[in-house]
Amino acid sequence: MGNNVELESLRRQVRDVTAQIMRNVHQRMELAKQIGEIKNRLGIDVKDEKVEHDISAMVLSLADQIGMDRDFALQLLNVLLSESEEVQAQRRQKRGLKQTHMGIFLKAKKIEALGKKIIHMEVGEPDYAPPASAGNSLANSFKLMQYHYTDTRGTPRLRDALAKKEHVYEDQVIVTPGGRFAVFSAITSLLKAGQELIVIEPAWPAYKECADFVGARTKLLRTTIESNWTPDLKQLEEMVNPCTKMIVLNYPNNPTGKVLNGKAIDRIVSIAKDHDLYLLSDEVYADYAFKNFAGINEYGYDRSIMVSSFSKRYAMTGFRVGYAVAAKKIIAELARVQAVGITSVAEPMQHAALAALAEDPSENVRTIKKRLDFICSKLKEMSLRFVQPDGAMYVYPKLPRGEDIPLVEKLLEKGVAIAPGSGFGDCYWQFVRISACQPEKTLEKGLDVMASVIKEQA
Amino acid sequence: MGNNVELESLRRQVRDVTAQIMRNVHQRMELAKQIGEIKNRLGIDVKDEKVEHDISAMVLSLADQIGMDRDFALQLLNVLLSESEEVQAQRRQKRGLKQTHMGIFLKAKKIEALGKKIIHMEVGEPDYAPPASAGNSLANSFKLMQYHYTDTRGTPRLRDALAKKEHVYEDQVIVTPGGRFAVFSAITSLLKAGQELIVIEPAWPAYKECADFVGARTKLLRTTIESNWTPDLKQLEEMVNPCTKMIVLNYPNNPTGKVLNGKAIDRIVSIAKDHDLYLLSDEVYADYAFKNFAGINEYGYDRSIMVSSFSKRYAMTGFRVGYAVAAKKIIAELARVQAVGITSVAEPMQHAALAALAEDPSENVRTIKKRLDFICSKLKEMSLRFVQPDGAMYVYPKLPRGEDIPLVEKLLEKGVAIAPGSGFGDCYWQFVRISACQPEKTLEKGLDVMASVIKEQA
Repeated sequence: MGNNVELESLRRQVRDVTAQIMRNVHQRMELAKQIGEIKNRLGIDVKDEKVEHDISAMVLSLADQIGMDRDFALQLLNVLLSESEEVQAQRRQKRGLKQTHMGIFLKAKKIEALGKKIIHMEVGEPDYAPPASAGNSLANSFKLMQYHYTDTRGTPRLRDALAKKEHVYEDQVIVTPGGRFAVFSAITSLLKAGQELIVIEPAWPAYKECADFVGARTKLLRTTIESNWTPDLKQLEEMVNPCTKMIVLNYPNNPTGKVLNGKAIDRIVSIAKDHDLYLLSDEVYADYAFKNFAGINEYGYDRSIMVSSFSKRYAMTGFRVGYAVAAKKIIAELARVQAVGITSVAEPMQHAALAALAEDPSENVRTIKKRLDFICSKLKEMSLRFVQPDGAMYVYPKLPRGEDIPLVEKLLEKGVAIAPGSGFGDCYWQFVRISACQPEKTLEKGLDVMASVIKEQA
Repeated sequence: MGNNVELESLRRQVRDVTAQIMRNVHQRMELAKQIGEIKNRLGIDVKDEKVEHDISAMVLSLADQIGMDRDFALQLLNVLLSESEEVQAQRRQKRGLKQTHMGIFLKAKKIEALGKKIIHMEVGEPDYAPPASAGNSLANSFKLMQYHYTDTRGTPRLRDALAKKEHVYEDQVIVTPGGRFAVFSAITSLLKAGQELIVIEPAWPAYKECADFVGARTKLLRTTIESNWTPDLKQLEEMVNPCTKMIVLNYPNNPTGKVLNGKAIDRIVSIAKDHDLYLLSDEVYADYAFKNFAGINEYGYDRSIMVSSFSKRYAMTGFRVGYAVAAKKIIAELARVQAVGITSVAEPMQHAALAALAEDPSENVRTIKKRLDFICSKLKEMSLRFVQPDGAMYVYPKLPRGEDIPLVEKLLEKGVAIAPGSGFGDCYWQFVRISACQPEKTLEKGLDVMASVIKEQA
């Protein structure tokens, strides 16, 4: 009976303190609203990294002092910060409509469905064929009864082959439906709401989208054409705070084609080590590196996750097969997400990927290199500013004037699809991305249309 | 200048109130810990629906009173409640190891890889072949260059065909990598952290796993063998509270084989309408209904999401193709998740699915029905209690004594794989699930082994 009385009294206290919390949170939101109004008047951005950083530091030190769980304290703070931003952001969408390369691709597909021809320079989908061996595998897969659930991490044979290729053990490999799902499962399984990851911009939008999915926060390290798209590593180190859990690398880079030198990667790995950060290295363009490129696996860092894919290497985009390589413990986390989301990758696709793996992609690499050189020469004729790509399959020139979206839409009307630069980061609205996934003749036509539209705008 | 001073002062107030919130939350956790200790002593469950309900009501009325956003107040409360449960649950995993049918399947696969034979009665993967037309499509897909990215929602032709089959418009359909991903994207896109969904147990574990993924809370409506697995709809209605956003239905049911009558579905739809709830109806076993079954699409409810799949209907598990049907606005939400996670379903698999769609699955249905009858007759011989399934491909008998996991593991040693009942809900540890996806001869062997092991235990 004493227990029940005590229980009732404790519950009353819980109710009281809950009400107090709600009142305080409400008061906090009212303050945030007032701050938002002043910021509006002054024309200051809603997000203020410095203020956020200070308040995180305060909360962490308070948590230590009163013996509160640090992770939970940060999670709670981030719920509060997100809501404050919502409350403050009355004037959202400053630049109006937002478009990504995928959005343009889907628009272009719709126009094609109506019978109009489109030159596809917006998407990283090579025009050449996948290896014939992948086709043969596909043709035989039904006869061989390859239509069952497989191990969530992939068929043993494909995992073995990938492990050999990457010089790791098979339990360090997971086969995923595209490199995209490897990125998705890595970010969503390794980050919790309120934790942070650092993305170097311009960047493929997927990293931030995956972080948003679990309420993790993306901190952006911006690079510029002026500095040859080289990230400032001093700045990177300064961005790391107790909430930071991951750095995302993507070299050869989409969209800039940048490849970092060994010294820079050394430094990034050492920053990650010093702060126990995951290092997600998206290397789907590794084959298309035209200068020395060191993959993250060479560093033997136990918190790195290397993502690769069959899509770009073998032009197998529609097969949707990619993979990740990481420590066994990390692969287990990715497998958990994969088991919840998709059970396993379609079995015929896994066998086709295994067959392709024996093929040499160097002809594809030569093709793309030659096309990129061609695109660069055409952009020079247009007097556009750009950095000659070290790798990948794109050029990312700066427009002489105007914004990306109007140009992209104008070109689409004229049957030419290119990707808006702002799809890779809000502040890159003066850039566009041109993909080298069409024959030179086609690219020439597309670039000529682009040149004439840009000239008209002059 | 005055603005800046004001801004600084407001920021100081924000810091102070944030610190106060953290202190209060910490105090709340300490109280929760004390309550947990008392509950432990008294042997009471950590979760107390009544107490939770009361505190939600209090928070809502307080929110109204002080003008706080209701959704945000509830979200915050749920973050606090989840953490309190964690703090209280020191004695987790009361019953030790947790196993699902998929876990047993993967264990069985490993044993097979060592050369031992396993009788698979644990997984819902039919032994019969997919339609030959799907095989032909697969054999031709490379030649036809069907290896590209498609629209995120699926190829226009497959969507059109599915729209016709389901009597809806094509923009009400999305093609997913298995029915599982349709469930995943529906739950993760329509529910936010802190919101609730109601699942009728025993249930496929995926629903709760998907909810956990975004921090949504799963409320369980338990059904019993005594009531023929019929849910108590009065209880269902009482469970609905302002946090509730979705009810999940799965009929014909996995694992019980239950099919609800039209009157029950009417009532559930009307509860959903009254409270503006999403109704996620997982109908992947709809073809295998042996009595009148009304799919949710017949109700024209604008917040329903119907999930279906090619896996069970056509034995196409390893193709990984499923789909969802819902209002256009809801499909757009699912497509957003799909774009982030996987871009699109592998193109050859979509064409194979389209080819299969022309085939009649009724032979498959007759096969499963006959096998289920056979399993039931054998279970009767063993004097096990069960409800004759109205549909799906499983029987869910109650064990005469002992727990599920030890029996399942013992059987696996003897080359027979069955699914533990507790994989479908913690409180069903006296049940096992037997799948009808093997020929009668094989089932007979497996069930004989099961009978002898159960007899030994007597």
